[in-house]
Amino acid sequence: MAVSVGLVGTGTVGRGFLEILAKHHDDFLRHYHIDLQVTRVCSRRNDVACELGFSNVFTYDFHDILNDTSIDLVVELIGGVDDAFDIIAGALQAGKSVVTANKALMAQRGKELFALAHEHKVELAFEASVGGGIPIIGPMKHALISNEISCVMGIVNGTTNFMLTCMAEQNLSYDQALQIAQQKGYAEADPSADVDGLDAAAKIAILSSIAFNTRITLSDVYAQGIRALTPLDLEAARDMGYCVKLLAIGRRSEAGIEVRVHPTMIPRSHALASVKGVYNAVYVVGDAVGDLMFYGEGAGSGAAASAVMGDVLECARHIQGNVRSFVGCTCSDTLPIIAMSQLETKYYLRFPVVDSPGVLASMASVFAQHNVSIYSVVQRGKKDKDTVEVVYVTHQAREQDIMAVVEEVAALPDCLRGTPALIRVED
Amino acid sequence: MAVSVGLVGTGTVGRGFLEILAKHHDDFLRHYHIDLQVTRVCSRRNDVACELGFSNVFTYDFHDILNDTSIDLVVELIGGVDDAFDIIAGALQAGKSVVTANKALMAQRGKELFALAHEHKVELAFEASVGGGIPIIGPMKHALISNEISCVMGIVNGTTNFMLTCMAEQNLSYDQALQIAQQKGYAEADPSADVDGLDAAAKIAILSSIAFNTRITLSDVYAQGIRALTPLDLEAARDMGYCVKLLAIGRRSEAGIEVRVHPTMIPRSHALASVKGVYNAVYVVGDAVGDLMFYGEGAGSGAAASAVMGDVLECARHIQGNVRSFVGCTCSDTLPIIAMSQLETKYYLRFPVVDSPGVLASMASVFAQHNVSIYSVVQRGKKDKDTVEVVYVTHQAREQDIMAVVEEVAALPDCLRGTPALIRVED
Repeated sequence: MAVSVGLVGTGTVGRGFLEILAKHHDDFLRHYHIDLQVTRVCSRRNDVACELGFSNVFTYDFHDILNDTSIDLVVELIGGVDDAFDIIAGALQAGKSVVTANKALMAQRGKELFALAHEHKVELAFEASVGGGIPIIGPMKHALISNEISCVMGIVNGTTNFMLTCMAEQNLSYDQALQIAQQKGYAEADPSADVDGLDAAAKIAILSSIAFNTRITLSDVYAQGIRALTPLDLEAARDMGYCVKLLAIGRRSEAGIEVRVHPTMIPRSHALASVKGVYNAVYVVGDAVGDLMFYGEGAGSGAAASAVMGDVLECARHIQGNVRSFVGCTCSDTLPIIAMSQLETKYYLRFPVVDSPGVLASMASVFAQHNVSIYSVVQRGKKDKDTVEVVYVTHQAREQDIMAVVEEVAALPDCLRGTPALIRVED
Repeated sequence: MAVSVGLVGTGTVGRGFLEILAKHHDDFLRHYHIDLQVTRVCSRRNDVACELGFSNVFTYDFHDILNDTSIDLVVELIGGVDDAFDIIAGALQAGKSVVTANKALMAQRGKELFALAHEHKVELAFEASVGGGIPIIGPMKHALISNEISCVMGIVNGTTNFMLTCMAEQNLSYDQALQIAQQKGYAEADPSADVDGLDAAAKIAILSSIAFNTRITLSDVYAQGIRALTPLDLEAARDMGYCVKLLAIGRRSEAGIEVRVHPTMIPRSHALASVKGVYNAVYVVGDAVGDLMFYGEGAGSGAAASAVMGDVLECARHIQGNVRSFVGCTCSDTLPIIAMSQLETKYYLRFPVVDSPGVLASMASVFAQHNVSIYSVVQRGKKDKDTVEVVYVTHQAREQDIMAVVEEVAALPDCLRGTPALIRVED
């Protein structure tokens, strides 16, 4: 008995999905006894469907898929939130399992969708929503569940990691790196979702929800992107034995959960420091298992389609085996989310200041007033004859105190000569 | 309804298993609605069971577990082949699912056990048999199944990786490194299973069986250990930009499957090169997903117990959900295994030879006779005034030709002054 699939979306991942099926349909049948058939394809454009031989089952209207009672499983690959919600919710309500790669939707309306899947006794799978082809949601929902996870963090946006790699290795500016990323097709014409950290924020919301058994939505995540990073700061990081990565971090502590995305200085010896270009990696720390890292291609047609097809085959196994004992929503706790102002970590701060006696002393007293203890201070090469760059690395400090320091240094009379830089440090 | 577990074996991993349960029983109940109860413990010694509060359910006779019809699931953690086979086979025949960490048994008699599990409609899970706590079998049997895997390789023995890290970083001999490993408890008094590559061979047999859908048993695997490695060769590797790791390699080609374990020179820029100490990592290449790496602690009580408990919870989910559609044996192909003599790769060869005119020419002609093309040749520092070390790196060559070269160089009159070294090279 064939498992009948309706595909919505024929962009990069949708095409990859159809290509895998064309190549491996017979292998899936031989190995897993699954006869997977795409019986309906929906998209805004019919070119890919026609090119790949699906013109006779093509439709512009996704209701044709929802209303087709012979379809067991819907694959949603259009992205975005509103239309995708209607498609997925409609499919679940129609008793069809759903596989999606949609991180934005899962990070914003995952709870509603899980409730629908549960109500209608069907499955909702989303491995491809985080880390492209890297198996990470599966392991966290299965192999690792005997652990209390204390930390899940990673490089989950290939575009910005490519740009940061360019900036660090070729000493380029943000604008130059963006241009290269756009030329190579790694960055969109409007790169905001990537460079402002929103894509990574959705992904860490999903990972943290699973890791901490607590529903975390996109709006819970502090997100700061890479637009403000300068070659000067990357160079200073390198000189101190660090590199700068856009890390998405979820961490459990006594007080609750931190969930945040921002440029982060990590030691060059850390496993995540060696993740370069468009590669992704997710680092997980569990109380029994210790430190784990999952590494692979975070984007691209094949990688994401691999994860989508893996989910589809797993759902197909369940459909064929008439299995209804799915692992759905695992948010059985409601741990508090720690406000960003209460974060405690180390900080890199760079102030371009006037080169005159007394300035360092004034700044030091601001740090002291706010109980921010300094690990190192270095005065770096002059920009012009009147301005010097003063670089501080702090010991563990509280975010709100650091913000107060930055504000008060800015208010010192005749001191600041440019925009200060702040990068959080993970050791 | 509780899920009732019988535990056989209370060594390092068995203790870790009981400790995880003591710590997280209530979490498992809250998050996964699984009330896991260890209702019987069997071991050769009762000290751990008594210490951890299981003296009242302790037995020296595993039949007490097999004959207890209230037990749903048996956890086998005694290791070894014969007794473990009897326990697992008996449990499966009694209709109990089984979780094991036993790589030697799975690599030698996995096929029989899978047949029994299938026949009796129960589950056989063995995530902990490879890579300690690293989820690798789960991802390969689920998330990655849409891929044709071309290569699975890794550092899967923590003992030897620790020793090689010591040898490389502290310039120690094999014997010195072994002594440190034994002092730290990483190596057994009889270290053969680790240092001769047999442990790694069992693990790559298991991984290759899954990756290539073809049953590969321990006896199919070429295994060469690290006893013959010298600081001289590690130093030569370093000078050429390589490091030496005991790699377990499974690779698919047109002609069939290679499955082998041996010291291997890999570029220092390769992701596996940065895996140090007792850490493990498995590298997987799939046709859709591209390159992936799974990294973590390969040994230790917590890591292995994490994997065992993950399997137990997954089996418990299935038992509670009355799910009978398990993923069992996936060996649905019978690809041929390529004889080691037919292997094609690059080779590092070191010959200690007499320092006299004509020797290099004689050796070169031996290489030429066997059509082995040389990429580089370097004469390294003299050992004594009459002997020089000549180091070759070849282009791609066939194993049987390389072996012929080594044999014929050894037979050259007045040439060889010591044992030649051979290390295969992966680029």
